[in-house]
Amino acid sequence: MDIIKIIENKKNGLELTTEEIKYAVDGYLNGEVKDYQMSALLMAIVINNMSKRETFDLTKIMLDSGDKIDLSSIDGVVVDKHSTGGVGDKTTLILASLVASCGVSVAKMSGRGLGYTGGTIDKLESIGVKTEMTLDDFIKQVNDIKIAVVGQMGNLVPADKKIYALRDVTATVESIPLIASSIMSKKLASGADKIVIDLKVGNGALIKNIKDAKELASLMIEIGKDNDKEVVCIVSDMNQPLGNAIGNSLEVIESIEVLKNKGPKDVRELVISLASHMVSMAKNIELEEAKKEVIYNLKNNLAYEKFLSFVKAQGGNIDNIEVARKVFSIKSIKEGYITKINTSKLGEIVKLIGGGRVNKEDKINYKVGIVLNKKIGDYVKKDEELLKIYLEDKDMSIKEILNCFEIGSKKIETKLIKEIICQ
Amino acid sequence: MDIIKIIENKKNGLELTTEEIKYAVDGYLNGEVKDYQMSALLMAIVINNMSKRETFDLTKIMLDSGDKIDLSSIDGVVVDKHSTGGVGDKTTLILASLVASCGVSVAKMSGRGLGYTGGTIDKLESIGVKTEMTLDDFIKQVNDIKIAVVGQMGNLVPADKKIYALRDVTATVESIPLIASSIMSKKLASGADKIVIDLKVGNGALIKNIKDAKELASLMIEIGKDNDKEVVCIVSDMNQPLGNAIGNSLEVIESIEVLKNKGPKDVRELVISLASHMVSMAKNIELEEAKKEVIYNLKNNLAYEKFLSFVKAQGGNIDNIEVARKVFSIKSIKEGYITKINTSKLGEIVKLIGGGRVNKEDKINYKVGIVLNKKIGDYVKKDEELLKIYLEDKDMSIKEILNCFEIGSKKIETKLIKEIICQ
Repeated sequence: MDIIKIIENKKNGLELTTEEIKYAVDGYLNGEVKDYQMSALLMAIVINNMSKRETFDLTKIMLDSGDKIDLSSIDGVVVDKHSTGGVGDKTTLILASLVASCGVSVAKMSGRGLGYTGGTIDKLESIGVKTEMTLDDFIKQVNDIKIAVVGQMGNLVPADKKIYALRDVTATVESIPLIASSIMSKKLASGADKIVIDLKVGNGALIKNIKDAKELASLMIEIGKDNDKEVVCIVSDMNQPLGNAIGNSLEVIESIEVLKNKGPKDVRELVISLASHMVSMAKNIELEEAKKEVIYNLKNNLAYEKFLSFVKAQGGNIDNIEVARKVFSIKSIKEGYITKINTSKLGEIVKLIGGGRVNKEDKINYKVGIVLNKKIGDYVKKDEELLKIYLEDKDMSIKEILNCFEIGSKKIETKLIKEIICQ
Repeated sequence: MDIIKIIENKKNGLELTTEEIKYAVDGYLNGEVKDYQMSALLMAIVINNMSKRETFDLTKIMLDSGDKIDLSSIDGVVVDKHSTGGVGDKTTLILASLVASCGVSVAKMSGRGLGYTGGTIDKLESIGVKTEMTLDDFIKQVNDIKIAVVGQMGNLVPADKKIYALRDVTATVESIPLIASSIMSKKLASGADKIVIDLKVGNGALIKNIKDAKELASLMIEIGKDNDKEVVCIVSDMNQPLGNAIGNSLEVIESIEVLKNKGPKDVRELVISLASHMVSMAKNIELEEAKKEVIYNLKNNLAYEKFLSFVKAQGGNIDNIEVARKVFSIKSIKEGYITKINTSKLGEIVKLIGGGRVNKEDKINYKVGIVLNKKIGDYVKKDEELLKIYLEDKDMSIKEILNCFEIGSKKIETKLIKEIICQ
């Protein structure tokens, strides 16, 4: 087989055979296929697309490129959640404890943040939670207290890792089959029985419009089916940050508020929806019944208590939370309704003040961030506070921050959960 | 500027600005833009195309990336010829002497062969012609005897060299704007006043169909206009080798035959057409008048004498021509008309028996090759000779050779010169 011929076939819009995809992926992993050849192939895939069959094949070939986690010794059905990433997305922190409090096993592997989307592992480390443990300890903790959250374990889907790093620097990220196979190969490798996907759509997400979101959701559900795994996709709005807080410690504080049955309405709504689906799938009960249990556990502090025992089990302490001392109030220079928030730009600002990583090796400053006082649809007066910014050593221009907001005369209605797509 | 944004723009089918193209090309040459980024950009260009303006810009930016040869101290108008490459293409050898014999200055820089298309420099070296000289000596020889043929001089279009090498290994060769800007930037850098392009079309050429050939020809003519250079394109057939001989020494022998007003009809026809246009453009005379002079010089040995004095001036000797001693006659196993020849495959065979390079550093065996006894439209009886193969140390399967020919019951008419496209 010849990689040039394979690239040529995709360039000409042909469907690649299973063997051709395997040759390209395995060859890239072992160095026979060069970076510049894989990037040409990826660009041809981005523009000319892949069929379902090709996407199924790509997913399986990437999945088979590394280790697979065996969670079969965990009691009951293991349901995993994946978010496609957005600004202010702190759902995992809340959700894991909430679902575990309902008696469902939560064995979660999470990632670090790169770019403007935050990582669960970073947020946990901001309160001293240890996120490295052996597989045996991981499984034991889940069986003991129903919950464990760790960083990456084993050598999962190395092909996806290598290809993803290349896509990031060659403008080949935005492709529905490539995104679907990347997410699904990772989820299938981490050993859960069922998967709920929080698919973010909007100007702060990878997927910008609802049409693409639906297509991606259907494809991931079909990949799940092809691998005998039930997948549910909840398409949620990312045209503004989720909740009010952006930045590691600030998001942990907000998460604890929600676990105490307070906090922003949108975070609560999304967490309840995700948790209800996870509990319903894990216990094989009706969604409404699951939802009742979820709401009950939030109201009666059971989720919060589970969170505390989880943090304790992994060596953390919520009394450790520190935020930056330099807090500036950014005030509106216009009066009217907030009509639009440049979400990715806002995420970028938090990254630039030290709250995120520009490069993989960068150290994050957990204490910095932003807390919004106004969101889309809210009315703001001149000189009223739009947000607070928490700064340490790095500075930020007020104009840049104000530029993230559009203010107009018409009140905009927003809808957080746009679509729930099941098998 | 940001290369990822530039790749993204072309991926989305946008027209790149002059500054974006310059950033990508210059950045690639100085190493800031990586191989894998350039190959992703090239694939996006191949699939989404480039506008005329983008192609003009790319040509100028590549042209400006290196040296430009100044031929202004050569007497009269300098007309250059370029062939897009094919199997058995020995026109330069004949044409240079023929045009020079008409009193036109021929200052030709040629390349070596890579893959299955032959290189003029290799053919000249097979008879001991020295193809390295200083620019001053080159110009002096042209002013003295009207003709000099050398290898590459100076650092011409390094951007094209680097990009071309990448295109070769990433299936991004076949793109009309990329081919046009590559050819034209090289021709513009080599300093000729006017340019005749022999654009090969067929199964032994880069361009497979007449529609693409016409589009490429028009684009090259327009690039010429954009740079105040007159360009004429002669679109000629490459669905079978040009002439009968393939392989360096065998092609030199055939070229000498044509210079003596003998040899294969097709080579003669193409050379007369190309030479007539070159002489007409250089002397600013009617094409018919130029053609008369060209035919006269062939008939009266003036072209051949010019060839001998050129070879002598550059230290060669035609008595040195050697061909392989092991000659095998390959006979037809079917009876009928030759309906099709797999030209690139035939070129590939000559390469594999040592007549061409697999890698740039390979040494060529000048003595090996093929001489066809039958071409498309010819009738062949069972056991009649199709071709002779000249072998030295390497072997070749008879079946592979016979597979290059299709034999049927219908006589196919061929037309060598398919189109002449002028400004």
